[in-house]
Amino acid sequence: MITIALDAMGGDFGAEPIVTGAVQALYEKKGFRLILVGDRDEIEKYLPKKRRKLKDRLDIVESSDVISMEDSATDVFKRKESSIYRAVDLVRNGKADAVVSAGHSGATMSLATLRIGRIPKISRPAIAAYMPTKDGKRSLVLDVGANVDCKPEHLFQFGIMGEVYAREILGIQNPKVGLLSNGEEDSKGNELTKASFKLLKKLPSFKGNVEGNNIFDGSVDVIVCDGFVGNLVLKTSEGVAETISDFIKKRIKKSAIAIAGAILMKKVFRLLKKEIDYAEYGGAPLLGLKACTIISHGKSNPKAIKNAIFQAISYVNGDIESKIEEKLKNI
Amino acid sequence: MITIALDAMGGDFGAEPIVTGAVQALYEKKGFRLILVGDRDEIEKYLPKKRRKLKDRLDIVESSDVISMEDSATDVFKRKESSIYRAVDLVRNGKADAVVSAGHSGATMSLATLRIGRIPKISRPAIAAYMPTKDGKRSLVLDVGANVDCKPEHLFQFGIMGEVYAREILGIQNPKVGLLSNGEEDSKGNELTKASFKLLKKLPSFKGNVEGNNIFDGSVDVIVCDGFVGNLVLKTSEGVAETISDFIKKRIKKSAIAIAGAILMKKVFRLLKKEIDYAEYGGAPLLGLKACTIISHGKSNPKAIKNAIFQAISYVNGDIESKIEEKLKNI
Repeated sequence: MITIALDAMGGDFGAEPIVTGAVQALYEKKGFRLILVGDRDEIEKYLPKKRRKLKDRLDIVESSDVISMEDSATDVFKRKESSIYRAVDLVRNGKADAVVSAGHSGATMSLATLRIGRIPKISRPAIAAYMPTKDGKRSLVLDVGANVDCKPEHLFQFGIMGEVYAREILGIQNPKVGLLSNGEEDSKGNELTKASFKLLKKLPSFKGNVEGNNIFDGSVDVIVCDGFVGNLVLKTSEGVAETISDFIKKRIKKSAIAIAGAILMKKVFRLLKKEIDYAEYGGAPLLGLKACTIISHGKSNPKAIKNAIFQAISYVNGDIESKIEEKLKNI
Repeated sequence: MITIALDAMGGDFGAEPIVTGAVQALYEKKGFRLILVGDRDEIEKYLPKKRRKLKDRLDIVESSDVISMEDSATDVFKRKESSIYRAVDLVRNGKADAVVSAGHSGATMSLATLRIGRIPKISRPAIAAYMPTKDGKRSLVLDVGANVDCKPEHLFQFGIMGEVYAREILGIQNPKVGLLSNGEEDSKGNELTKASFKLLKKLPSFKGNVEGNNIFDGSVDVIVCDGFVGNLVLKTSEGVAETISDFIKKRIKKSAIAIAGAILMKKVFRLLKKEIDYAEYGGAPLLGLKACTIISHGKSNPKAIKNAIFQAISYVNGDIESKIEEKLKNI
């Protein structure tokens, strides 16, 4: 049975949304076990009193320390009693198949990279983020923050990892890979992307350069970039969506007719919110490691945690690591 | 009287929207002259037959060639009969104070940089783009495409130019300058931005690192980045806005109630459209040159051309070049 280690303490809102999401996941899906790592009393507070049905599927591993968002990621290796350290080590020691954390993402990344380890021939793990597309599907952007300064071979590896993930988890038979650039022509790009373009051309799935708007139009499934650019793209997208929603809300308040209109359009807005809500995906996988690591948003609600757990299950079932390793061997 | 040279031929839709916008500008504002550069017959087609009132304010300079969007920017120096070459040379030869073009932006950039020339101590001109903010104001992002690979001193100069422009043209008394990065903390950034941060700290207007979403929340007025990143931010923003508008339109069509709602909300949508419509700004100034150069969108409609002309007038009136030069001297 798949076992998932869950850092119950690291999120912005403490144990409540995480434990609640964990319980929802257990009731909604069978065939997996959860280990909640953290302060036992805190965790117990949010667990149902009667949970006999869950007893074989739910464990608690005590940990006395929590890495907070303000802590520096360099200290984490000394804080062996922290919930994220313990959760990662459950995977390292073979007690769990995957780790999910809504805590300090830098800490999760460093610990997972060094204590779980990288897939052979992968130089750097990458965080992959789901983006909504016009046709109601998903595209995958990586890296969105693990590596701010990249070399061409890193971007090449991101392309391979993204392709495997898109095929196995998003279920796209022949995923198309694009390189994020300042124009679609082959000649466009900066020094890094021009050199990366030459390497990526070796992949049959590579469709060339794509632009910022192509992330959302479904023209490719996987968009490769360095972590600095990926972070900016993510934050810019959030900013635009927020600004538009803010704008609509403010104007609606000013007019009775618009209020009536908004009520009638409620369902459309609800669907739109769902489309851009990260809780629907749950978290971002850290690709390139020897075991599944899912980084969830610090502000995750129970639904986001539940979906992050489901994502981890698909990842383990899909045997992503072996498939990335195999793909690398064949190139 | 201020004279503006307008490339009448370079846009995606030929002379019609450009000449129409030019005439609108002349009727709407006094105190400036226009020189339309291009095929005389084509231009005449869209000019009003009776235009005695405009006769002192409207000239045509014949040119027999047009640089198309497919042409390479390296050929432009040989194509001396092209409308953009002629328009730029009107400024070079003191016949005009500013040039506006909706043509091939790479060609406009190369020609203006080499034939009009850079302000002393400015190594690279930068394209500045207007972005809408939540509070209904504008922020300025630069560079959005002139320089894909930058050095720290370039980003430092962009900061100075952006500050001057924001003060003189946007009317912000004490503009705040931010450096686009992958986090707000001083320690965040890639190699380029970390080195640029140290230089920008010399400016009293510099407020440190900002993230992608800060472009739209009004926390700073000027956002500095290299042209590769700036282009991605711009295209990503367009993509998100388009996706949201597409989504709403599609869903509305599926439900009679939502159609009624949308009709009631029409005014809100119209205001939103206005907020994100580039035609409202007209074009992007190429900052750092010895004379005003405005790069308009290839798909500019008459309104965008009119506003680009008005922007050029403010630029010349604001004496931006001297102010940038002065600011550089004092640092």
